[in-house]
Amino acid sequence: MTTLAIRGGTVLTASGTHAVDLVVRDGLVDSWRAPGTATDADEVIDATDLHVAPGFVDVHTHLETVVAGVSTADDFASGTRAAAFGGTTTVVDFVRQGPGEDLIERLDDASGRARGRCAVDYGFHQIVGDVRDSSLARFPRLVAAGVPSIKLFMAFPGDLYSDDTQLLRAMRRAAELGIMVMVHAENGLAMEFLRERAREGGHLSLPWHARTATPAIEGEATRRAIVLAELAGMPTLYFVHVSSAEALDAIADARRRGLPVFAETCPHYLYLDVAELDRSWEEGVNFVCAPPLRTQEHRDRLWWALSAGDLSVVSSDHCPFCRSTLFPPERRDFSKLPGGIAGIEYRVPLLYDAALRGRIPLSRFVDVTATSPSRLFGLDPGKGSLAPGSHADITLLDPRGVTRTGASDHHMRTDHSVYESLTLSGSVHAVYLRGQRLVHKGRWVGPEDLGRFIPRRQGTDLYDRRSLPGGDAVDPA
Amino acid sequence: MTTLAIRGGTVLTASGTHAVDLVVRDGLVDSWRAPGTATDADEVIDATDLHVAPGFVDVHTHLETVVAGVSTADDFASGTRAAAFGGTTTVVDFVRQGPGEDLIERLDDASGRARGRCAVDYGFHQIVGDVRDSSLARFPRLVAAGVPSIKLFMAFPGDLYSDDTQLLRAMRRAAELGIMVMVHAENGLAMEFLRERAREGGHLSLPWHARTATPAIEGEATRRAIVLAELAGMPTLYFVHVSSAEALDAIADARRRGLPVFAETCPHYLYLDVAELDRSWEEGVNFVCAPPLRTQEHRDRLWWALSAGDLSVVSSDHCPFCRSTLFPPERRDFSKLPGGIAGIEYRVPLLYDAALRGRIPLSRFVDVTATSPSRLFGLDPGKGSLAPGSHADITLLDPRGVTRTGASDHHMRTDHSVYESLTLSGSVHAVYLRGQRLVHKGRWVGPEDLGRFIPRRQGTDLYDRRSLPGGDAVDPA
Amino acid sequence: MTTLAIRGGTVLTASGTHAVDLVVRDGLVDSWRAPGTATDADEVIDATDLHVAPGFVDVHTHLETVVAGVSTADDFASGTRAAAFGGTTTVVDFVRQGPGEDLIERLDDASGRARGRCAVDYGFHQIVGDVRDSSLARFPRLVAAGVPSIKLFMAFPGDLYSDDTQLLRAMRRAAELGIMVMVHAENGLAMEFLRERAREGGHLSLPWHARTATPAIEGEATRRAIVLAELAGMPTLYFVHVSSAEALDAIADARRRGLPVFAETCPHYLYLDVAELDRSWEEGVNFVCAPPLRTQEHRDRLWWALSAGDLSVVSSDHCPFCRSTLFPPERRDFSKLPGGIAGIEYRVPLLYDAALRGRIPLSRFVDVTATSPSRLFGLDPGKGSLAPGSHADITLLDPRGVTRTGASDHHMRTDHSVYESLTLSGSVHAVYLRGQRLVHKGRWVGPEDLGRFIPRRQGTDLYDRRSLPGGDAVDPA
Amino acid sequence: MTTLAIRGGTVLTASGTHAVDLVVRDGLVDSWRAPGTATDADEVIDATDLHVAPGFVDVHTHLETVVAGVSTADDFASGTRAAAFGGTTTVVDFVRQGPGEDLIERLDDASGRARGRCAVDYGFHQIVGDVRDSSLARFPRLVAAGVPSIKLFMAFPGDLYSDDTQLLRAMRRAAELGIMVMVHAENGLAMEFLRERAREGGHLSLPWHARTATPAIEGEATRRAIVLAELAGMPTLYFVHVSSAEALDAIADARRRGLPVFAETCPHYLYLDVAELDRSWEEGVNFVCAPPLRTQEHRDRLWWALSAGDLSVVSSDHCPFCRSTLFPPERRDFSKLPGGIAGIEYRVPLLYDAALRGRIPLSRFVDVTATSPSRLFGLDPGKGSLAPGSHADITLLDPRGVTRTGASDHHMRTDHSVYESLTLSGSVHAVYLRGQRLVHKGRWVGPEDLGRFIPRRQGTDLYDRRSLPGGDAVDPA
Repeated sequence: MTTLAIRGGTVLTASGTHAVDLVVRDGLVDSWRAPGTATDADEVIDATDLHVAPGFVDVHTHLETVVAGVSTADDFASGTRAAAFGGTTTVVDFVRQGPGEDLIERLDDASGRARGRCAVDYGFHQIVGDVRDSSLARFPRLVAAGVPSIKLFMAFPGDLYSDDTQLLRAMRRAAELGIMVMVHAENGLAMEFLRERAREGGHLSLPWHARTATPAIEGEATRRAIVLAELAGMPTLYFVHVSSAEALDAIADARRRGLPVFAETCPHYLYLDVAELDRSWEEGVNFVCAPPLRTQEHRDRLWWALSAGDLSVVSSDHCPFCRSTLFPPERRDFSKLPGGIAGIEYRVPLLYDAALRGRIPLSRFVDVTATSPSRLFGLDPGKGSLAPGSHADITLLDPRGVTRTGASDHHMRTDHSVYESLTLSGSVHAVYLRGQRLVHKGRWVGPEDLGRFIPRRQGTDLYDRRSLPGGDAVDPA
Repeated sequence: MTTLAIRGGTVLTASGTHAVDLVVRDGLVDSWRAPGTATDADEVIDATDLHVAPGFVDVHTHLETVVAGVSTADDFASGTRAAAFGGTTTVVDFVRQGPGEDLIERLDDASGRARGRCAVDYGFHQIVGDVRDSSLARFPRLVAAGVPSIKLFMAFPGDLYSDDTQLLRAMRRAAELGIMVMVHAENGLAMEFLRERAREGGHLSLPWHARTATPAIEGEATRRAIVLAELAGMPTLYFVHVSSAEALDAIADARRRGLPVFAETCPHYLYLDVAELDRSWEEGVNFVCAPPLRTQEHRDRLWWALSAGDLSVVSSDHCPFCRSTLFPPERRDFSKLPGGIAGIEYRVPLLYDAALRGRIPLSRFVDVTATSPSRLFGLDPGKGSLAPGSHADITLLDPRGVTRTGASDHHMRTDHSVYESLTLSGSVHAVYLRGQRLVHKGRWVGPEDLGRFIPRRQGTDLYDRRSLPGGDAVDPA
Repeated sequence: MTTLAIRGGTVLTASGTHAVDLVVRDGLVDSWRAPGTATDADEVIDATDLHVAPGFVDVHTHLETVVAGVSTADDFASGTRAAAFGGTTTVVDFVRQGPGEDLIERLDDASGRARGRCAVDYGFHQIVGDVRDSSLARFPRLVAAGVPSIKLFMAFPGDLYSDDTQLLRAMRRAAELGIMVMVHAENGLAMEFLRERAREGGHLSLPWHARTATPAIEGEATRRAIVLAELAGMPTLYFVHVSSAEALDAIADARRRGLPVFAETCPHYLYLDVAELDRSWEEGVNFVCAPPLRTQEHRDRLWWALSAGDLSVVSSDHCPFCRSTLFPPERRDFSKLPGGIAGIEYRVPLLYDAALRGRIPLSRFVDVTATSPSRLFGLDPGKGSLAPGSHADITLLDPRGVTRTGASDHHMRTDHSVYESLTLSGSVHAVYLRGQRLVHKGRWVGPEDLGRFIPRRQGTDLYDRRSLPGGDAVDPA
Repeated sequence: MTTLAIRGGTVLTASGTHAVDLVVRDGLVDSWRAPGTATDADEVIDATDLHVAPGFVDVHTHLETVVAGVSTADDFASGTRAAAFGGTTTVVDFVRQGPGEDLIERLDDASGRARGRCAVDYGFHQIVGDVRDSSLARFPRLVAAGVPSIKLFMAFPGDLYSDDTQLLRAMRRAAELGIMVMVHAENGLAMEFLRERAREGGHLSLPWHARTATPAIEGEATRRAIVLAELAGMPTLYFVHVSSAEALDAIADARRRGLPVFAETCPHYLYLDVAELDRSWEEGVNFVCAPPLRTQEHRDRLWWALSAGDLSVVSSDHCPFCRSTLFPPERRDFSKLPGGIAGIEYRVPLLYDAALRGRIPLSRFVDVTATSPSRLFGLDPGKGSLAPGSHADITLLDPRGVTRTGASDHHMRTDHSVYESLTLSGSVHAVYLRGQRLVHKGRWVGPEDLGRFIPRRQGTDLYDRRSLPGGDAVDPA
């Protein structure tokens, strides 16, 4: 039973900043002390001039999976290691059920592959790519397994796509069980129609990726999903990777009517412009993601929604590919590309930079990257905050540091970065997982297999499941 | 240097609940300890099964003032004492500048009267009821005096009313100085027109109070104030006592466009129906307030806006009158009544009840009644949260307790209560101001003059003025 | 070559009323004369104190067809005869292509059955109930046959339903060919889901018809259809039987963006309340239609939209059933009922009553029941107005007359009327088709087989296809 | 008693186009004949290949008046002559009541000056620039004098400005009397504030004219006027010179709620960009108007609103100045300029061009330039259409003609044209006022003083005041 003190720093929380010393015992936060008084620990870290943040939580990653026939570049080991370099200590990854597959088999498979190979703690969401009776019958087992969130696709007909009947049936069962319903909201049939038209016209270049997946297509699906959810008993909805004003309007309208509708965006939608697709094929291909990047007008709306509260989370949607080797010249067709951007390592630095530059308050930065994702997905009180009793997942940030981005330095296994050669304000100084230091000043200094599966609870009262005192047992072991 | 430990309770914050022990030293929160471990203090309070909340913050009260020629029933002493009984440890009261008066003289007058007579800590907002050059010239002194928030009235022509030119001029100067602009948004000229029509028609009864101050009149003024603020350099706006869907729509539209627009509602708009005005004159007169009470449809919208974030604060707008003695039968004219509802003591119990019943999460309850008002108005980090370094303003709440409301028991000096004979879930168990216990189980147990003036800072970065570490000196003395 | 003069009346047009004499020659309107001067005709009708309206145009009827396995009660003969009694001289009926059927075969079949049996002139729209390559290939032949309008169903999966891909493909081809796309906008998958839930719960009574086909379901489909149409090259859209505020909002939003989106409502949505479904099964069953009847709030919105212009047409959606004999007690299940209301005879009297009572101007009454439907669907200049050159389809209306409604008197072959025992202001005095009198004071006085097929042109410039002078050949023969 | 036949042309109406011959007798339209049959008149005009339109109606002109101390360039004689050259045969001009003046005195003055000097028929609206009891007391006399429409200004404090109380009082009296309320909707106090800021900053150049009169300022006033009108008993509202999306949104929202709210725009808002103010002072000064010109985004919205029906009228707001001589270099201050654009002669050619190019249908062109303004302002049935009984105000338009615009050719007395050197499709071929030809192929061929004052009725049923037959006496003499 050793103790660790983090002394002299400024603790960041979702509702303020506090000059306090932290004491860690047995992998949990033990206490908050008056600044400068925590001197009696086994180990004392000087955090003077540093921000002391909860280990960040990334609830949207795709590790060691296959998209459009191509394996993502990061496996559980490399991806979680890169996450830690970027200050993230918990990831929630997607388990993919394709057509004809069994949910629990797929979950067991992913669990087996992840076990013992992750550098940070992890959980799973279940993609339900084949909504049928036998899939619905597995939902209680998902809950029992600590995986109380499913993802439904309104895109990708022929693969993960659900039609409205399937959406309704899955939503209804989820509502009954308190399962969160995550939605990829793009009208897949409309996109397929436009892509076919593009191909007929010989339009295979990258800008057509965006032209065939318009904001209107995202907005339509978002609005429809909300209508369907209301008809199905109103499960809690969570829209992944929101990219457009049209989708935000639908979400904000629902929230004004008191519906439990939440949403995330991703760093690339906040920072990158659709004009990136005008680059050469070799470079532009790295900027293909679904939904596609948008114009400045949409980015402004996303930042405003982050401030106003209509967006609750910024996650990475980390979906990394080494693209340069994949497509020979004769197969240069935007519609055949696997979509995805590698961002697990830069999500936190990008948003921290935004906070240091004043675009969002520091408290909001912590909220959308750690506290809200944790609370929305049942990871609290262990994750997402640094109150006594929480896991001692701690990320020390240096507001005077600098982060230089790019493929030559990052730890993701992609051969490029969409954030090449940026200089960001602030840096990740050190990262602790349940009290153990993993990263220090850009070097890996801990074990690489410390990550554990974190079972999650379903949300009966979304934002406050523990409204009565006394029920907060947390076991980080 | 004595210490106090609050042990075994569940601490409520704006972003979660935590099973921790609190240690208080010299009037400040000293540390958070692992549950059950804080045993070495001079005094140990057993908070098992209790919620430990930050002392609540009420940023909208009218004590010891005159409205429509009638003095409010509570003076600084009685009003702040009632506040404490209701769990509130900080109030921000309004200093009234009427036509022809000097801002600073009025502020000095209020300061002089409040000094040494308040039971809880207090601050001031400045009503600017006469926007003219000499008033604007006083704004820097308001800031210097720790009063960086002004209130402008779009209602009450002939008294506190500002026309659009005056609104623009005051807003512009406020924007330059980082002063928060609070707005009473009702179109006073339109109300006066309708009241004159009502009087012409012999309609003097109470329901005409609401018929002559419609939601459209509030919505119009709200929308106009936002347009004017944008033209004037966009100071931070704060709409007081929002009561209607029309006003909420204007506010939400502005927030979607990224504008720094915030708003409060009050318990009476959440709980009471306009039909209360259909009572007899003697009873109905107690339900007169400005804006008037609304229908269920509007109340639903207010609750939803509290959840979704478009409303940031619930304050009391405590404006108490002993009405029964005021108006002889021959003067029964709704348009002559001073408007105001006494709520300083019941604001927290009403909202706590809502949280216990699941209408809003506990964290949101704390946010809108303590943390957000504190942060919006520059009272943090001393007020509004319980992090080490904060003032040890602590309200212990008993979720298993019961609060029975009514004039026979309350401590406000009104001869009635609009919340007569309710039985609310939860009760205020004890209240501490900077470490000293004021209230215990419904009895006053401390000094009655402990309240101090709390100077406030203007908000340069509204939600996070202290984004760099190390700058958080707090001196509660 | 005989002539007919209608003298002393007041001619109603879509843009005003005019005191003129009409002269008819050879089935066409020949001239407008100064009032009282048309004395030299072979036959002179005294229309003093009468309104002289263009023969009314009903662009939405279902005659001699099968719905849910049940034949509609009116065949081409009885239905068009009832139309004439109600002042309507042109109907456009729907030809139904079910799954697997050929468009042109169905059109030929309907044409064959109608030929020589209709009392008034008629045209056809083509229901495309099976969007596939071979159906699309028939579209040019529809145009050539004078049937340049198709109807797509977002409801009724398993029968006429089109999924989004089918909608897009049909819309695109229609856009290329200038074919009007009519849409039944209800999300059929959502309705089927709710109906299955209702049946599971044993809810088979009539109110569940409306509960399983909510305004949100109509609004969703309407909004989606517009998005899809934009992606498909924006054919002219025409929403049939709009019933709800949600649908109107979608339509009005589109029109504000300059899109060629038009819509109709029907008399039953303007006049009847969803509460009619609370009647006994025997009575309530007559009020089943798709979409279902709505509440007063929706009806108000429909009337306002008629005035403001967002609704262009009032058609009957005449779909008559003799319900009392159809369902034995053991089969009383709302979801098995054929939906439809008989209204071909009362559409004009109901709207004329509204105009006489001042709810809409007389000019607007003529516009939405005659002129706009004619122009939108390519029936002008022959139909829908009374300018020289137009067909002499003339309905004389008596503003001082009275119309008593009900099954005992009407000429539709239903055993009931949803408008039982109303007393309406105004009456149909006489009806002429291409100069021949069919109806006079409630009696049939002409031939019963005078109706001819009217081929229609596709709209290249929707509201003004004949913008250059000289191109207006009209041949009523 | 001579007769005139216009033979072989295509008559344009607001609801269609018709190949008919027109016969005119004694200054009124006598009859419509089958094409080619009108051969027995005293004079027969061959209109083959021509459009035969009702004489156009311009309900917004400022002739022989003083704005900002400067007289408008056209007097009643020159302005109405220019109107006729442009196809307009009726104008409704504004009588200006300034502060302290008497409404009826001003009306008498204008009537006296106009009598016998106008080339086309004319009416008056009354500007109420000083809302006080004695002004309201004159309203019945306005109605009796055939001037049942007033204009209120929300702009121009110190001159014509009405505050909200004045707006409410005037609106209420107007509602009682059936007087149309025209509104200049810009927040004058806000503009004055911005202009003062601009002057303080030394910003006197032309672009600041637009920067200090933003779309938000127009939208705010429009929305407020509608709220006030509802409180005041809802007179019919008519917004003049709508220029922005913000104003359109307010208008469309009101119309969706069934309110009698109408609006016009002007050709310069449809055709000219705010960038014109970036020209040199000498040139740019001609483009100053109130509200200012806007960007393309706003123009698109205006065109769409014309199609969808939210805009009912296009009027000229003819307010001509010879600017080049007015301001010496030392007085170059945008805020001192009289605002106004000369357009009375080009309104019809500009819109006719739009119709010929397909931007709006020909029927809509006639509707917004002749029929709707006539009906809205009580000029029908004499004006705005060509039915028998209407005044024989006839404009022959040549769709194959060409109109070249510019100061060297036009008949307005301005030394410039904002439409310099355009080549428009279509031309005015000939113009008849009550049967007398005024203009033929660009030359004046008739008397110059034929214009008569046309008293107008107030609208009891806005769009159809003559719903009962028999009451349409029209006396053009």
